[in-house]
Amino acid sequence: KERYDVTYMAGDDSGFDMMEGALLVLEAMDLPINWHRADLGWCMWEKSNKKFGEGDPRCNTVPPETIKMIRDTDATIMAAITSKAGVKGFKSAILQMRQLFDLYINMRPAKKLPGIGTPLKGDPDIDIVMFRENTEDLYAAVEFYPLPKEMFDLHPGMDRFREGKGNVAVSWRVFSEAGCERIIRAAFEYAKATGRKTVHCGNKANVIRQTDGMMKRKFLEIAKEYEQYGIEAHEENADATAMWLIKNPQNYSVYVASNVFGDILSDEASQLTGGLGFAPSGNIGENAALFEPSSGSVPKYAHQYKVNPCAMLMASKMMLDYLGLEEEGRKIEKAIGEVLVESKPGTLTYDVLRDFRDDPDWEKNAVSTLDMATAIAQKI
Amino acid sequence: KERYDVTYMAGDDSGFDMMEGALLVLEAMDLPINWHRADLGWCMWEKSNKKFGEGDPRCNTVPPETIKMIRDTDATIMAAITSKAGVKGFKSAILQMRQLFDLYINMRPAKKLPGIGTPLKGDPDIDIVMFRENTEDLYAAVEFYPLPKEMFDLHPGMDRFREGKGNVAVSWRVFSEAGCERIIRAAFEYAKATGRKTVHCGNKANVIRQTDGMMKRKFLEIAKEYEQYGIEAHEENADATAMWLIKNPQNYSVYVASNVFGDILSDEASQLTGGLGFAPSGNIGENAALFEPSSGSVPKYAHQYKVNPCAMLMASKMMLDYLGLEEEGRKIEKAIGEVLVESKPGTLTYDVLRDFRDDPDWEKNAVSTLDMATAIAQKI
Ligand SMILES: CC(C)[C@H](C(=O)O)[C@@H](O)C(=O)O
Ligand SMILES: CC(C)[C@H](C(=O)O)[C@@H](O)C(=O)O
Repeated sequence: KERYDVTYMAGDDSGFDMMEGALLVLEAMDLPINWHRADLGWCMWEKSNKKFGEGDPRCNTVPPETIKMIRDTDATIMAAITSKAGVKGFKSAILQMRQLFDLYINMRPAKKLPGIGTPLKGDPDIDIVMFRENTEDLYAAVEFYPLPKEMFDLHPGMDRFREGKGNVAVSWRVFSEAGCERIIRAAFEYAKATGRKTVHCGNKANVIRQTDGMMKRKFLEIAKEYEQYGIEAHEENADATAMWLIKNPQNYSVYVASNVFGDILSDEASQLTGGLGFAPSGNIGENAALFEPSSGSVPKYAHQYKVNPCAMLMASKMMLDYLGLEEEGRKIEKAIGEVLVESKPGTLTYDVLRDFRDDPDWEKNAVSTLDMATAIAQKI
Repeated sequence: KERYDVTYMAGDDSGFDMMEGALLVLEAMDLPINWHRADLGWCMWEKSNKKFGEGDPRCNTVPPETIKMIRDTDATIMAAITSKAGVKGFKSAILQMRQLFDLYINMRPAKKLPGIGTPLKGDPDIDIVMFRENTEDLYAAVEFYPLPKEMFDLHPGMDRFREGKGNVAVSWRVFSEAGCERIIRAAFEYAKATGRKTVHCGNKANVIRQTDGMMKRKFLEIAKEYEQYGIEAHEENADATAMWLIKNPQNYSVYVASNVFGDILSDEASQLTGGLGFAPSGNIGENAALFEPSSGSVPKYAHQYKVNPCAMLMASKMMLDYLGLEEEGRKIEKAIGEVLVESKPGTLTYDVLRDFRDDPDWEKNAVSTLDMATAIAQKI
């Protein structure tokens, strides 16, 4: 393919600022990409509420035109969106899109960045790529509250919840064989393609025997196919991973886990390499892929151009890799690294100065999202 | 009460060694305690298999005499046990006892120790007490595999799992109102009793709306009762905690979470303060309490007296606190701190030398569990 079509979506709050910063860099690169703007998030929610009336099922954060555009283009990047957990009927745009496009891979790299390092003594080498299952588990939204009387009869383990416990809420943790297989395979295929030599799988099969038992079994089964490529497989308890990520992060390379464990452990891993200001994530399926910074939308700084553009740029890099434009992706990563290492006055946003430069005057010395993006663009 | 009865159980593998080390210190203290030895773990499993025949439902890691003794005594300490996830029919002793005695509080302190510090740059002050719910959640062992056909009809969210997904496994995440309430109250009561000023609650109510929604709601409700004591309540996403524990551990004091989140996050917190070699945990209910080191049984060093006795001693300290012997508990903690700070030759086990002293000759310089315990006992 000579040219690609890519959808971009500015998200909410500071999402706009980071997207503008990222586009500034991407547009300076002369990429073989036609950019298509689409909308989603809180403003769409408000707009649809005005149009259809509050409570109408058509009210949504993701309008139909956006869905069509994601479907029709080769890849999508989106900036951070708001989560607004409290608002009635509000459906998270990202959760919807993961389901709608069956984006079963949540790929989250955590790599020590030059000029950022790690919060750990001795600055160990960290270069982990997490593969989090992205469609099943407690994210299936199969829940019951209050649990209907007759459902207590389905399992003797529910007997002790019958009396004296008040209402009972149950959320189903759903794992399918196909679901486990494809995320595990994605992890091993990635290891094979990139020459990585270990794949770890986090689970609690010692306790949650059926769902995690399935995950562990499939992992050990599929691992056998990859022995011939010299890829070692390790399965371990997910709680142990939470410790060992801190103790020996250099021991991890590719890591695969179910949705909830992956959610928590990938956030932990990203904090070991600079935190959400630098962490991108890819939501990838067979027919669509959506790349986003892992950070939230930082409402308190909305439209003030304070946030750091790096996570959004690293998400853009992942998108370029996905399209096969790896050379271009590497340029972005290299340019970010140079700006961080040179650490020149007038090039770094507040969070970098405050959290990684111990600059007591970080407020005064901070530059805007766009200034930092410009500094990065100039390195390309 | 003038004298207390305490059950002690040596566990498996290196559990024996750490219990011997701990008893050496405890016996040197002239405590108002009558000690009662009970058995549990792998050896009981083997014994009962020999007696009843493999597959007999009476085969168990916890013999009836042990259950009786725990019931009849004031508190129990146990050393690490093996998990043997693979063995058919094998039931984890600790999981059984949590249910049997309704030990709904898993209390896990993570405190920076003198002479150990933290793995984090700048050695932030860490003094967190986690309250993990210990009886519900995915630990209820309500599981289905393969999910029976008719159960797909219970929720429209299961439709997409009907075809083309292979077998489906489902584990129920069960939360009861009473279950949420009592663990949240335990956390606030502890804060009130100890003068701590914040309680955090980790959840994913933004995604897992019914179970975590209940947890969050109860937390905010109960929090109101404790405002008058100047205790601040913060609820947050459990994945965010996984990051912020690394970024700002000093911001946490008391933390409450459901079983699985608490399992993972308390392990992460314990790694920030020296890891499992130092981490105790208390399993506490209305009528019984069982204190254990959070570590595993380190089978490769079984009966070699290599492991560090500190976690077992810190568990003993928690047991003393529970009995109201706080003064005695403080002595243990102080003595451990002195030995670690003085760091004299001939007083530290291999793991301390290797992981916290960067001693290249750790193998040669390490002393035994009992030597380190003796050094600690001498400080009391
Ligand atoms: C915003 C939220 C729904 C989301 C999740 O829980 O998956 C986020 O935490 C993530 O990791 O992408
Ligand atoms: C050994 C295992 C069953 C246990 C658990 O998962 O609760 C352990 O990890 C713990 O944290 O006490």
